[in-house]
Amino acid sequence: MSHQYERPPGADGLRLHLNENTAGCSPRVIEVLRSLTREQAAIYPDYDRAVEAAAARFGIGSDSLLLTNGLDEGILLTAIVGLRGSTVADPFEAIIVQPAFDMYAACADGVGGRIIDIPPRSDFSFPLDRVVESVTAKTRVVFLTNPNNPTGLSIPRDTVAAVAQAAPQALVLLDEAYADFSGESMIDDASSGRIPNLVIGRTFAKAYGLAGLRVGALVGTAERLAPMRRIVPPYTLNVYAAAALPAALEDIAYYDWYLTEVRQSKALLYEVLTRHRVQFWPSEGNFVLACFGDDLPRVIGDIAQRGVIIRDRSHDPGCAGCARITAGVLAHTRRLAAVLEEVLCDAR
Amino acid sequence: MSHQYERPPGADGLRLHLNENTAGCSPRVIEVLRSLTREQAAIYPDYDRAVEAAAARFGIGSDSLLLTNGLDEGILLTAIVGLRGSTVADPFEAIIVQPAFDMYAACADGVGGRIIDIPPRSDFSFPLDRVVESVTAKTRVVFLTNPNNPTGLSIPRDTVAAVAQAAPQALVLLDEAYADFSGESMIDDASSGRIPNLVIGRTFAKAYGLAGLRVGALVGTAERLAPMRRIVPPYTLNVYAAAALPAALEDIAYYDWYLTEVRQSKALLYEVLTRHRVQFWPSEGNFVLACFGDDLPRVIGDIAQRGVIIRDRSHDPGCAGCARITAGVLAHTRRLAAVLEEVLCDAR
Repeated sequence: MSHQYERPPGADGLRLHLNENTAGCSPRVIEVLRSLTREQAAIYPDYDRAVEAAAARFGIGSDSLLLTNGLDEGILLTAIVGLRGSTVADPFEAIIVQPAFDMYAACADGVGGRIIDIPPRSDFSFPLDRVVESVTAKTRVVFLTNPNNPTGLSIPRDTVAAVAQAAPQALVLLDEAYADFSGESMIDDASSGRIPNLVIGRTFAKAYGLAGLRVGALVGTAERLAPMRRIVPPYTLNVYAAAALPAALEDIAYYDWYLTEVRQSKALLYEVLTRHRVQFWPSEGNFVLACFGDDLPRVIGDIAQRGVIIRDRSHDPGCAGCARITAGVLAHTRRLAAVLEEVLCDAR
Repeated sequence: MSHQYERPPGADGLRLHLNENTAGCSPRVIEVLRSLTREQAAIYPDYDRAVEAAAARFGIGSDSLLLTNGLDEGILLTAIVGLRGSTVADPFEAIIVQPAFDMYAACADGVGGRIIDIPPRSDFSFPLDRVVESVTAKTRVVFLTNPNNPTGLSIPRDTVAAVAQAAPQALVLLDEAYADFSGESMIDDASSGRIPNLVIGRTFAKAYGLAGLRVGALVGTAERLAPMRRIVPPYTLNVYAAAALPAALEDIAYYDWYLTEVRQSKALLYEVLTRHRVQFWPSEGNFVLACFGDDLPRVIGDIAQRGVIIRDRSHDPGCAGCARITAGVLAHTRRLAAVLEEVLCDAR
C-alpha cells in the first residue's frame, strides 16, 4: 500500500466517479462569484461572514467551527495534531476502519504515524469489536466515515460513542462528508463536548456543489480545535470560497432540490441493478457501490466508451469487483442507467 | 511570544498594510474567472495546466515545483516534513532569522519543533555568524526570507549557500515571496540540486495580484519535494486559482507595468521620508520599512483617520518604532505621500 492519494485519471464524459454535485453550484453562487472584482481577487481573504453563515447552518457557535481548504485540509490538520510526537522508533497510531478515503492513510503516514487498518466485515457492518480491540496506549487518531465512502452504510450513533469512549486519548475524526444526504449528524455531540474527543469533518463540496472552491470544516469544542486553529494558515479559504459559501447556504431551495434528485437517482440505480442481479449496498450517500465481479473491468470500460465515467473501487479492502457510481441529477442518472442497461445486456 | 499568526484587524481605507497588489489582478485574469461555470465550480480541480505554466515561468521542470494553497501552506508543509519526529522531551529545531514572517514560528511550534530565534543586527545586515553558530545536530529547518520582510533587505547568494552548507541535515526554506520585485532568485540553485537542501518558496499573491486566490509554490529537487508532495492535499488549489494562474502568467505587460509602479512608488516614499528625516531602509520588496520612533502610534492613527492603513511592525525584533508601508500603484502612493506630509508636518 503506497499510502499516497492517487488522483484518478482525467475523465472526458459524464463525471460520475468523484461523488461531485453533477448539477453544479447554485446559480446564486455563480452570480456572486462573477461580481467579484480585480481588487477583491488581489486581497487576503476575510471570511468571518462565511464562518458565521456555516456556524448558523450547523447551529453552533463560531468557536466550535474551523473552516478549511476542503475537508482534505481538515484531515491533514487532524493527523498533524493527533500524531505529533511520533518518532520512527516509537510512532503514535491512527486507526483506519476500511474501506476508507485514501487521504486518511496518506496524511497519517506522511506525518510519521503508524497506520492500523481495520479490515471490513463481509457485510460491511461496522466492526466495533475489532476497532476496540485495536486501541492501544499509542492510539492518537481514529478515522471514521459516516455514511461510509464507498459503501454508503451508516454507523449507529452509539457505536461512534463507544469508539470515542474506548480511545479517550485519541482524536476521533468522524468524517461526515456525505451527511447532507443521510440527514444524520453528530455535530451536537462534538460541539457540546458531550463526546469530548469527537471532531466532525464536513464539506460543502457535495450537496452544495462547491468542490472546486474548496470549503470544508472541522467541528468540535473550542478547546479541541485550538491546536488545529493554531497551525491552519490564516488565509486558508480563498476569496471566491468565502463569497460562495454564504450564498450557497442561503439557497435552501437549491439544496433541497439537489437532495431530492440524489434520492431519486439512487432509487433508479437500485432498480436497474436489481433487475440485472448486480449486488449493491443501499446507500446513505450520493453514490452507490455495486459489485460487478470479474466483469468489472469490461463494465467500466464499456461505460466509459459510451461517455460515462464511474469509479473502480475494486482495490479497496472488501470491495473486489466493485465500482462506485455517483448519484447526482436524475437526468444524468437516467443517462447512466440507459448505458448500464446496454452494457449489462451485452454481457449475456 | 505566542507563536500564533494574528490576522491584522479589518481595514477600511486604502490597504497599504498587507503588501498586497493595490492594482488588483490583471484584467485578463478576472475575465477568465468570470467565464467559469456552475459546473466548473462544482468539480475537483485539475491544475496540471497551472503547474506547467508556473514551471515554464520559472524555467524548471514540473517535478521541481509544488503548487500550494498560498505560500503559507508551503511553509506549513516544510515545518511538518522538517520537524517530523520531534517529541516534547527531544524536539528538532527550526532556526528563524528575525525579523521574520510570523507564520514560520506558528508552524514550527505548532508541529512540535523548538524555535531558535536569531535576533537581527542593528543595521539588519544578515547575521551569518550567529546563524552558523546556532546550528546543532537537531537543526532540521532554517527559515530565510529574501528579500526580507519587513526590512526589504536582501541576503547575498553566497550567504544563503553558506547557511545551507552549515546545516546539511536541515531543509533551508528561502522564502522569495518578494523576489519578483528584487529580480533576484535562487530557484536554479534549488531546482538543479546545486544546493541540495535548499527549497524556494514563491507566491503569486504580490506581483501577480492573486492574494485572494491563494497560489504559492515550493521549488526544489523532485527528491526534496517528495515528502511535501505526499501530504499536500491532492486538490489544494481551487478551480479559480487554477484558472487564474496561467492567465496571470501570460499577461507580461501587466506584470512589467506593476513592477514599474512599485519602483516609482518606492522612489516617491524615499523622497518624502528623506525630506522629513524619517529613517527608512531601501527596499528590494513592494514595501518600505520606516522608523517613526515614539511618534509611531500617532502617525499610524492619524494616517488611518485620513483613510490609509499602514502596518505597525514595532513588535518585530529590531523594529521598535517602525511601520511597514506597501508600495503599490503610484497613484495610491501619491495619496499616502500627501497624507504622510500632513501627518508629519502636524508633528512639528
